[in-house]
Amino acid sequence: MHDFTESLRPSQPSGPELLARERAQSNVPTEALANHLLGSDGFLSRQSKVLAVVQSEPLFNKSHQQNLSRPDRFKLALARGKLLRRLADKHGWAPEEHEMAEYLVDDVSPYMLHMGMFVTTIREQGSDEQRAYWLPQIEAWKIIGAYAQTELGHGSNVRGLELEARYDPGTREFVLHSPTLTASKWWNGALGRTANHAIVVAQLLLPDSRTSNGTLGTKYVSYGPHPFIVQVRDMETHQPFEGIVIGDIGPKYGYATMDNAYMLFNNFRIPHSAMLSRHSGVDPVTGKYTKPAESAVVYGTLTYMRSKIIQHARLVLARAVTVAVRYTAIRRQFPDRDGASNCPELPVLDYPTVQIRILPLLAIAFALHYTALAMQNIYANTRREIESGNFSSLAYMHSMSSGLKSLCTTLAADGIETCRRALGGHGFGGGSGLIQLNNDYLSKPTVEGDNWMITQQTAAYMLKKMTAALQKPNAVVADEIDGQFRASLPLILDGAGKESSYDILGSDEDLVKSFQRRATALAYNVYQARVVRKQPWTSLMTDFHKLSKAQSQSILVTKFHDALVSNVDLPAATQAVLRDLFRLFATFTLEADRYEFFTCGAASRAQLDVLPARVNELMARIRPHAVPLVDSWKIPDYLLDSALGRYDGRVYEDLFNRAHQLNPLNKVTVNPNYWEDEIVKGGEDLKDIRAKL
Amino acid sequence: MHDFTESLRPSQPSGPELLARERAQSNVPTEALANHLLGSDGFLSRQSKVLAVVQSEPLFNKSHQQNLSRPDRFKLALARGKLLRRLADKHGWAPEEHEMAEYLVDDVSPYMLHMGMFVTTIREQGSDEQRAYWLPQIEAWKIIGAYAQTELGHGSNVRGLELEARYDPGTREFVLHSPTLTASKWWNGALGRTANHAIVVAQLLLPDSRTSNGTLGTKYVSYGPHPFIVQVRDMETHQPFEGIVIGDIGPKYGYATMDNAYMLFNNFRIPHSAMLSRHSGVDPVTGKYTKPAESAVVYGTLTYMRSKIIQHARLVLARAVTVAVRYTAIRRQFPDRDGASNCPELPVLDYPTVQIRILPLLAIAFALHYTALAMQNIYANTRREIESGNFSSLAYMHSMSSGLKSLCTTLAADGIETCRRALGGHGFGGGSGLIQLNNDYLSKPTVEGDNWMITQQTAAYMLKKMTAALQKPNAVVADEIDGQFRASLPLILDGAGKESSYDILGSDEDLVKSFQRRATALAYNVYQARVVRKQPWTSLMTDFHKLSKAQSQSILVTKFHDALVSNVDLPAATQAVLRDLFRLFATFTLEADRYEFFTCGAASRAQLDVLPARVNELMARIRPHAVPLVDSWKIPDYLLDSALGRYDGRVYEDLFNRAHQLNPLNKVTVNPNYWEDEIVKGGEDLKDIRAKL
Repeated sequence: MHDFTESLRPSQPSGPELLARERAQSNVPTEALANHLLGSDGFLSRQSKVLAVVQSEPLFNKSHQQNLSRPDRFKLALARGKLLRRLADKHGWAPEEHEMAEYLVDDVSPYMLHMGMFVTTIREQGSDEQRAYWLPQIEAWKIIGAYAQTELGHGSNVRGLELEARYDPGTREFVLHSPTLTASKWWNGALGRTANHAIVVAQLLLPDSRTSNGTLGTKYVSYGPHPFIVQVRDMETHQPFEGIVIGDIGPKYGYATMDNAYMLFNNFRIPHSAMLSRHSGVDPVTGKYTKPAESAVVYGTLTYMRSKIIQHARLVLARAVTVAVRYTAIRRQFPDRDGASNCPELPVLDYPTVQIRILPLLAIAFALHYTALAMQNIYANTRREIESGNFSSLAYMHSMSSGLKSLCTTLAADGIETCRRALGGHGFGGGSGLIQLNNDYLSKPTVEGDNWMITQQTAAYMLKKMTAALQKPNAVVADEIDGQFRASLPLILDGAGKESSYDILGSDEDLVKSFQRRATALAYNVYQARVVRKQPWTSLMTDFHKLSKAQSQSILVTKFHDALVSNVDLPAATQAVLRDLFRLFATFTLEADRYEFFTCGAASRAQLDVLPARVNELMARIRPHAVPLVDSWKIPDYLLDSALGRYDGRVYEDLFNRAHQLNPLNKVTVNPNYWEDEIVKGGEDLKDIRAKL
Repeated sequence: MHDFTESLRPSQPSGPELLARERAQSNVPTEALANHLLGSDGFLSRQSKVLAVVQSEPLFNKSHQQNLSRPDRFKLALARGKLLRRLADKHGWAPEEHEMAEYLVDDVSPYMLHMGMFVTTIREQGSDEQRAYWLPQIEAWKIIGAYAQTELGHGSNVRGLELEARYDPGTREFVLHSPTLTASKWWNGALGRTANHAIVVAQLLLPDSRTSNGTLGTKYVSYGPHPFIVQVRDMETHQPFEGIVIGDIGPKYGYATMDNAYMLFNNFRIPHSAMLSRHSGVDPVTGKYTKPAESAVVYGTLTYMRSKIIQHARLVLARAVTVAVRYTAIRRQFPDRDGASNCPELPVLDYPTVQIRILPLLAIAFALHYTALAMQNIYANTRREIESGNFSSLAYMHSMSSGLKSLCTTLAADGIETCRRALGGHGFGGGSGLIQLNNDYLSKPTVEGDNWMITQQTAAYMLKKMTAALQKPNAVVADEIDGQFRASLPLILDGAGKESSYDILGSDEDLVKSFQRRATALAYNVYQARVVRKQPWTSLMTDFHKLSKAQSQSILVTKFHDALVSNVDLPAATQAVLRDLFRLFATFTLEADRYEFFTCGAASRAQLDVLPARVNELMARIRPHAVPLVDSWKIPDYLLDSALGRYDGRVYEDLFNRAHQLNPLNKVTVNPNYWEDEIVKGGEDLKDIRAKL
């Protein structure tokens, strides 16, 4: 039948025309800026290479996946995960290329933990024998592994885990046992259906040498949580062994494609060799415990995961902002109220109420980028030091990574949703490309250390450093915090009540100093409360959180500024745009806490009063470059999967195609009469639906 | 086979025991407070009555719905919608009881628009003949209707709609035509699959009387958007008529159960009688237009919808807070850092970093409640005045409802997510009960006027009022804004730069005055910018938004306070707890904008400095009553559908049951070997999955 919609076009000017104008009006060189951002470590070439392979496979077509049930999404993801590994073999992909393919396909893969925490833990905590035995099987995917730490009743407090690993010197075995329901492992990715092996973290219980001769039935002493490698399913039947119950925990907010697990043990025996013994061990005969040389060494993996999280956050935010900028440059709504009576409607990105939501997030994406680079360097240096036995920077790195993980994932998670809401009604639609992104990303503020809980770690470190700085003001500067305190503290001690002399509107350096001063002042206040006035730790938790946030903001501002004053291979005009992004990031962030900056002497009343106007002015300067700036992040259309954000601007054609051609619901005609049981005309009836309940 | 998990219990103390302790430690009388909140208009008795019926129907069982695909969710919702209507007939439910049943089943119903906007528009805008003809068929659900206004290219700017209704005096018909793709109707609920009729809003085009004699082929003049009632599908086949294309727009963020539509017309003719003609009309013979007596009358429906939205917001937020308070009172994580070495872990609700996220939201739920009641009264009064031909309060009500809709839905939407994140990992799980709630509710900041766009309406009204107040300071006080300006404006004009004399820590009345003063000061600043300095409207949009927010916050604070100083039939101790909730709401809200209150002279530096401590102190006072306070909202377990929030506290048993017994994914065993195509052991293979792509 003739479909009259085929001949219809969107109203003029069209999306492609509008984006072409946007790209023509700015002198930001997209390719050069893209290279500056993502060229140096081969990210861009890797992306092009892998994208070509992935896009040509029908199994990776994303057109219909939003219509699948959760069990089907999981099965599809498993099939996709297998194909990706086959492609990796076929094309000889390096691990980073395989990772790139996972990123582009954008499923949270059922093999993710196998490729991540599972293998990493064996590498970092397995003895030489354990490495030699397990790594070849893992790398060939002969066995599939997961990482089982979190339990139904315990996540953040790892010391509170209930699963027991009791050593039986008689048989030289550990007995894994879940004494309660809350001891059930929970949330462990890839284990619900896919994995047959797992790192299992359990309380190590050893016979009390003072009260027994080492036989069973005597008293036991707990040595805290330790990792064991355990085969949990039969390799043939893929059923859990007798004495183990495992399953998938069911639907979640996002992560539809991941089989997060529950797992319980009933006196299940594993050999002595199951305990990962690079850093600690149990003598097989006596059951005597060997302590790790450096207990902080286990934080290595966590810190690494966090630095990856921040690298990921910048790309996630860039993706949301790409959609938001492109669509709001196309979407026109309302003529200018002060304009002529027949003037055309404005693109909504011209409205300050849209700019204030999107452009600061664009600036934040750059801030996250430069901070991620800096963190990567710090991590690499620290790693080298650790390998050579020097653990001195570990505490600094761990504490800073805590605060940064908290702030950066909060910024990205909230930023996606802010972008989505700025898209009007279509932001709620499946064509936004932000729904699965949002749902999956909302795990990040909680995983790898809850964003409110871990800020205590940053605060605790700063408290220690502040105490030292006040006691020994002339000691050696060992890390960046020492340097910051050395510069800001005398001003705070001398200058209480004085008006700030920083020129936060005229000097970028003063903006940086203002943030450092405010973070230092908060650290000093917390020091006064805890160390001097001895206030209870718990009562200060919200102050710790504010301190960690202030310090992390200061790091972001500092790293962004450092990157721009170093040698940047970009035209001066482009550097000026990046400078404006830096200023927008800093002033927008500062405005939200104006009272704090004011009372800390970090900014003057006169300048703070005009800060909102300054933010508006910076946004107006950045606005003409917004489209090329997001283009420079080079997020491929395939990854965006967004009608609103596509590079060519064919927004309305794409939205209509998704609805009119791709939506399976339109294949059925329903019967709306309430007095009739029929739901789908001539098709399924009420019985089919009841069967699914 | 024996399942050893059957004999396992959660670790002690159990959830039921912990909640019993919580309930015993507070003297808040749950039943009396519930009656105070929801008793007077029969809400509670209606809820009990309908709940009993709904809960006993297997079709309304929610256990498996999270596992259904989106098309299946829609079919289920259609079946449920039919059953609800049958139950309404069987039990003789009043409309409010039917509405209660929809609320408890918690699907966004495919019949929602039929029962709402469709019938309301006929009632409010249909002529007597149109009412007489259509209403009986609508009420008997013989026909099912929808409301089709928004288009692919236009939502907020209704005047920009592209669909044309051109009058043909020759045949006495209107010709509906979509000239472009962006003219496609879009988002229209219930129309995608279910409805056979719709209110269609189109640009009314009439022959230009100056240049023609009324025959076709002459020039046309647009009279702006008007509503028409149109049959769009055949009653037998349920197929759209020739000349109409309709379908469902596909998956969205939430609203899986709703068939939002697209619809286009190709020169489709409808009779003259289709135009709803209570307020305006077209002469069938001459094509001459009759103007509505009062153009603002169409805002009536919108304002009514907004007052319903705010009533809904309080229940939504109460629901999220109920889950958050009960679970965080049960979840224990970490012992007190300053406590003895073997002290037990604390319930996380004892941590200020958890309190600061949940307890202010509990206070906000009460603030929304009292504001919704006040708005309901204002709406009823205004409605009565309109019926008697007096339109004077319409502008006030409409402008205030804009700002309140914006603020209240933002508070509720952000509040759900804040609660969810405060639940740790389990907040991301399907047992939280907050996932569908969050997904569905995220439509609210956008629908019925985008939350950033509509704040201009509040600001525009205040700008007008401020201009009048400055010109005629002694004019009659016509509405609450006049009263507020009369009280605050002299202080602002006289007191620039003076320290505030309000005692916001010691006097509740001063807290109210402080908010009113700050809103008035922002209105005065906006007046200076726009009226005195003639700044462009667009450049002031962020200021307008801040003003609207400030004014709406002031209304919430005022209405909350008014409610507590009126005659409250509750014990003095309970009234004291409500007072603390009021103070927490006001001080928490104030703290976020401290700099603004400070520079407006609405609060003093000395008091603002200690505000965070005051918030902590109020939270500590409210903490012991948190569980009974949420109990008083009487959200049934059936509606909560939350393992974490259930009344009896059996959190871990419920989570485990959902995973171990109810999760369909656990019925399949997979093959994880990447070199094999098999996905499910002995079951579906790759071909089945490919077929779904």
